[in-house]
Amino acid sequence: MSELIGQLTMVSLAASVVGLIVAVFFYFRVKGLPEGTDTMNMIASFIREGAMTFLMREYKVLAVYAVAVFAFLFFAFQGEGTGLLAGGCFLFGAFLSLFSGFIGMKAATFANVRTCQAAREGSKPNALLTALDGGAVMGLFVAATAILGLGGLYYVFATHPHLATVLHSFAVGASSIALFSRIGGGIYTKAADVGSDIAGKVVEGIPEDDPRNPGGIADNVGDNVGDVAGMGADIYESLVAAIVATMAIALTAKIEFILGLFTGGQTAEEARFLAVTLPVFLAGVGLIVSIVCIFIARTLRQNAPAMVLRAALIVPSIIICVVAYIIMPMLGVSQAVTYSLAAGAIGGALIGLVTEFYTAWSPVERVADASKTGAGTGIISGLAVGMESTVVSLFIVAAVGYTANAVMPEGMELFGIAMGAVGMLAGTAIVMTVDAYGPISDNAGGISEMSGLGPDVRAITDELDSVGNTTAAIGKGFAIGSATLTVLALFSAFILEVNHVRVTSGMEELVLKLDEAPILIGLLLGACLPYAVGASTMIAVGKAAQSIIEEIKRQFDEIPGLREGKADPDGTAIVDIATKAALSQMVLPGSVAILAPVGIGFLLGPAALAGMLAGAVAVGASLSLFMANAGGAWDNAKKFIEAGGLEGHPKGSETHKAAVVGDTVGDPFKDTSGPGVAILIKVMSVVSLLIAPLIATF
Amino acid sequence: MSELIGQLTMVSLAASVVGLIVAVFFYFRVKGLPEGTDTMNMIASFIREGAMTFLMREYKVLAVYAVAVFAFLFFAFQGEGTGLLAGGCFLFGAFLSLFSGFIGMKAATFANVRTCQAAREGSKPNALLTALDGGAVMGLFVAATAILGLGGLYYVFATHPHLATVLHSFAVGASSIALFSRIGGGIYTKAADVGSDIAGKVVEGIPEDDPRNPGGIADNVGDNVGDVAGMGADIYESLVAAIVATMAIALTAKIEFILGLFTGGQTAEEARFLAVTLPVFLAGVGLIVSIVCIFIARTLRQNAPAMVLRAALIVPSIIICVVAYIIMPMLGVSQAVTYSLAAGAIGGALIGLVTEFYTAWSPVERVADASKTGAGTGIISGLAVGMESTVVSLFIVAAVGYTANAVMPEGMELFGIAMGAVGMLAGTAIVMTVDAYGPISDNAGGISEMSGLGPDVRAITDELDSVGNTTAAIGKGFAIGSATLTVLALFSAFILEVNHVRVTSGMEELVLKLDEAPILIGLLLGACLPYAVGASTMIAVGKAAQSIIEEIKRQFDEIPGLREGKADPDGTAIVDIATKAALSQMVLPGSVAILAPVGIGFLLGPAALAGMLAGAVAVGASLSLFMANAGGAWDNAKKFIEAGGLEGHPKGSETHKAAVVGDTVGDPFKDTSGPGVAILIKVMSVVSLLIAPLIATF
Repeated sequence: MSELIGQLTMVSLAASVVGLIVAVFFYFRVKGLPEGTDTMNMIASFIREGAMTFLMREYKVLAVYAVAVFAFLFFAFQGEGTGLLAGGCFLFGAFLSLFSGFIGMKAATFANVRTCQAAREGSKPNALLTALDGGAVMGLFVAATAILGLGGLYYVFATHPHLATVLHSFAVGASSIALFSRIGGGIYTKAADVGSDIAGKVVEGIPEDDPRNPGGIADNVGDNVGDVAGMGADIYESLVAAIVATMAIALTAKIEFILGLFTGGQTAEEARFLAVTLPVFLAGVGLIVSIVCIFIARTLRQNAPAMVLRAALIVPSIIICVVAYIIMPMLGVSQAVTYSLAAGAIGGALIGLVTEFYTAWSPVERVADASKTGAGTGIISGLAVGMESTVVSLFIVAAVGYTANAVMPEGMELFGIAMGAVGMLAGTAIVMTVDAYGPISDNAGGISEMSGLGPDVRAITDELDSVGNTTAAIGKGFAIGSATLTVLALFSAFILEVNHVRVTSGMEELVLKLDEAPILIGLLLGACLPYAVGASTMIAVGKAAQSIIEEIKRQFDEIPGLREGKADPDGTAIVDIATKAALSQMVLPGSVAILAPVGIGFLLGPAALAGMLAGAVAVGASLSLFMANAGGAWDNAKKFIEAGGLEGHPKGSETHKAAVVGDTVGDPFKDTSGPGVAILIKVMSVVSLLIAPLIATF
Repeated sequence: MSELIGQLTMVSLAASVVGLIVAVFFYFRVKGLPEGTDTMNMIASFIREGAMTFLMREYKVLAVYAVAVFAFLFFAFQGEGTGLLAGGCFLFGAFLSLFSGFIGMKAATFANVRTCQAAREGSKPNALLTALDGGAVMGLFVAATAILGLGGLYYVFATHPHLATVLHSFAVGASSIALFSRIGGGIYTKAADVGSDIAGKVVEGIPEDDPRNPGGIADNVGDNVGDVAGMGADIYESLVAAIVATMAIALTAKIEFILGLFTGGQTAEEARFLAVTLPVFLAGVGLIVSIVCIFIARTLRQNAPAMVLRAALIVPSIIICVVAYIIMPMLGVSQAVTYSLAAGAIGGALIGLVTEFYTAWSPVERVADASKTGAGTGIISGLAVGMESTVVSLFIVAAVGYTANAVMPEGMELFGIAMGAVGMLAGTAIVMTVDAYGPISDNAGGISEMSGLGPDVRAITDELDSVGNTTAAIGKGFAIGSATLTVLALFSAFILEVNHVRVTSGMEELVLKLDEAPILIGLLLGACLPYAVGASTMIAVGKAAQSIIEEIKRQFDEIPGLREGKADPDGTAIVDIATKAALSQMVLPGSVAILAPVGIGFLLGPAALAGMLAGAVAVGASLSLFMANAGGAWDNAKKFIEAGGLEGHPKGSETHKAAVVGDTVGDPFKDTSGPGVAILIKVMSVVSLLIAPLIATF
């Protein structure tokens, strides 16, 4: 490893150590804040215990899975002599994901009640700060462990002949944990939400956060396991996958193409390793900028939360591009890298704003308006909004790809697209901070309601919560946009890896011609898979919600005095049902994602697998955007009506009831199936990249 | 043209002439049947006039479009000296589509009231026969004009140097008319259906077929313009596109590959032309078999309609394969062709049965059951069913492709896939007969209700109608399955054509590598387009339904005595609104389909266009299957509850109301957007094939 590359890598490692230290500081700062009344405390501890119980049981399931994959990798890579290495790096990637999820969620379950307490003391800035600090623990852990893990492995194995296997195995570890966390968490949160909503409002006529509703605790636990732990694992994986995709392309691209990236002077070896190091380095720069921006955002807490948080999502990416613009010439790297990075950063921000437009502005009023003639027309309208937003968002992703393609020197177009993904994710630490802020303030609202605190408290938590909904939409835009670019890059890395192995083994290169039958058959098979995951997750939420509704009915029938508020509901029974349902139902969709590429790769060969990935990314990217945004539009149409947006159609009117139906459909759409499909395509691509050497000579 | 090829083509032409003669015979037989009471007659003439008015106004819009495309083709192909030829063949393809649509719909609007009259006379077999004969006019016209047009052009231009342009222009004519008819008809029928349904049931509390409902006539007109004329144009186009795709591959494939299809003895020239002729010939054989089967089905009219019609959909395809198995060796053609044909025919039948399972059996009960806890859970369940069925159906399509790929000699794999599409569509005449039977019996039921005929009459029409729903589902399976295979074949034909032109102009062949940036960018752009058409058609239905609801409300408020049944509603006002809305709203989605390939082809070149087609087929095939089947499941869940399938949840209960919401969402899903998306991908492929020579040297 040359000196320059060592230094660049050290910058990233140092940034991640700083990130972890800051995160630990926030963790203890939040933990030390006052917790409020005994009731608040009790409710918060129920939520915390429920969430931790879920994680612990999930870890048991994941342990079985991890052992199985470890064994598979151990034997599959034994032929190359890297069995232990591949298995070990897989476990390392998986462990770091679980570790950040654990710490981040623990922090969130401390922060929720303390945010509520700050609101109870009447200080909106303090409440905002508490929620933000709580979120920052997750945000910083996610970004720092991803960079530390990848950077550390790179530092150690840079000159190892199987560096690719090291990186790919780490990515598979990250991806598969993300898959299960996202899907399991998604099923949990929406089953609890839909179940307690319907049972509360429709069956018993009480609001979902009412202290009498036995589903209240499970609903709040769901926010933590789904929107904090699940989302965190997802974003961790996104960052890992984007960096690994870029590194993988740089590792296998033809050297004459790589040299085109540099302004001169480098030897071939230096150029290649500098190209491999760039994504790690730029992610490290992104982390430093994000840390600075988190502190700036904290000082702005007296301002309107909506402005502060929106700026926090968009400004850091732009600063990162400016920094890159200054540094790249110093490293002798073409500014094409900066332009690709910037295309991604700007594209990500644009997708975020488009997502916000479709899920918060005039389209939402259209959906609310259509609900006047019933749930049917409201749903039709929301589906149309979701589809429209998909068109615009995917178009922007294509434009980012087009830009990267245009600015990059010949042969490095896909490296540019991968850099675009890195650009979208460079601000991961702060994006995830803001993302995790959302469920913390949502929980704070839930705790204030269940503890019977007054409307003044609720007013503060409601404002913070509603800002969280908007930022969640923007965050989702970044997530799905970067996922799409990352998959395109991984896809290309896969093909490069296949041909690298073929050429090394003296075979001729495989040319994947789009009009060959195996590729087209793969395309159709790939098109099926997102629907398979969509269907199984929708069914899982439906089933689990059904069981929860029945249990809630049972409690109201059998617990004397519950309806009158004189007896306590049995919240842990619901938590238990949701936990079991989520863990058992996540196995099928999770297995599809892992087994499909392995099965198709080994049975039909690399060409069919490439076709499958192409079909899966086309269908998966569009389907997940569609589901996420339609869901967001329905959710906010309901809130718009509740806030009195439609004159003559107040909360409780037929129009409102119609909008609630849309929200019910949207819940699993946007928070279970949509993210599940997005992560599916990433997992399949990462798994394909890992097994590429094993099927290359098919 | 050699003697053998002349003879084979003549067989097809003779078959289509026979088909037309039989169709004319059915037309006059139906027209001569008794029409029933004056009221029935009056209602039927309102429906007929409404339908004809729509067609006439649609023709005016299409005339403008046709002139524009003619002008474009005239100038675009002027450089090749084929401007007039291309324009003329385009008009010919378009004219034949409109002509069969016109005759077929006219027959359907005679048959509906006569079917009702036969039911009034108490004869179920006669009612079945009348509806079937009425449908056969459309079925035979569609298949016969497609074969006559293509076969005739081939007969005349077989040795013309621009045969490809002739065939492709004809296909573009067929496709674009199908696109507008399907989308315009789809918007009309569902706007009228949803509008009169909601206004009737929800706003005024009367059933949709109630004589007082001003939307009743428009609803019945919609069945004719959407499910008869729109569907007819769609199926006509499918057959044309499948045949043209197969011919195009045979015309441009490398001769050494073509020779692999033959058992020996043929010269290169003979082999190529025999391969080009095969799809026309086999479609002709399919028509003969279909005609025979229509007569057999007629003699079985005393049996249960469900069995007769299901057999009518599946048996003919199988007979055609047996005939091919006997004839191919006589022509010196490899049985690989028969096997591909058979894979398609069996695959089509399987998709049909899968579709029926998901839209008529246990999954429907699941949806009905989920509606017990409200519209939200019912809709979630229907979406899941739609997704599941998509996975299974697309998997079957992939299996058909896999089989064709496996049995075909090297280089002809895509010819085999195209033959699979021909196999699925070989029974077009009888499939379309059964498809058109559905709306005729639906109309018969509507007329009986609006004329106040007794429950005995309604019982007969209801049974015929419900069988129609099942057969419609099976028919849709054939349609979308064959569309997917056809698009894959067209896609390959496009690339072959591009390279044919490049090689002819002394350029090197374009290798479309799946991992190149332009293709991946095209993939994302292609993934957007089905959602663009989905969104615009959903919005169109929503808007138009809204206007209809308002007009119906106005009539109930302003026409004294309407509510009490003492005054007549103004049905033509609704017909007028639906017509205007459908015609104005079909322009945007229609233009997307035509302009997207042209724009991307000329701006970004053939590689990006190929990527776009790949993205569009992956997303379009899955999205249209999903929408069609989810819609079917909701529709039948509602009917299941109405038929008393859920004990304790009768018609009118909350559960039933919840199921009605699903049906409302499903209406535009299954009959407007789903078919619109399916035809979009075909139109884009056909247009790409046509413009291939113009952009080949990009």
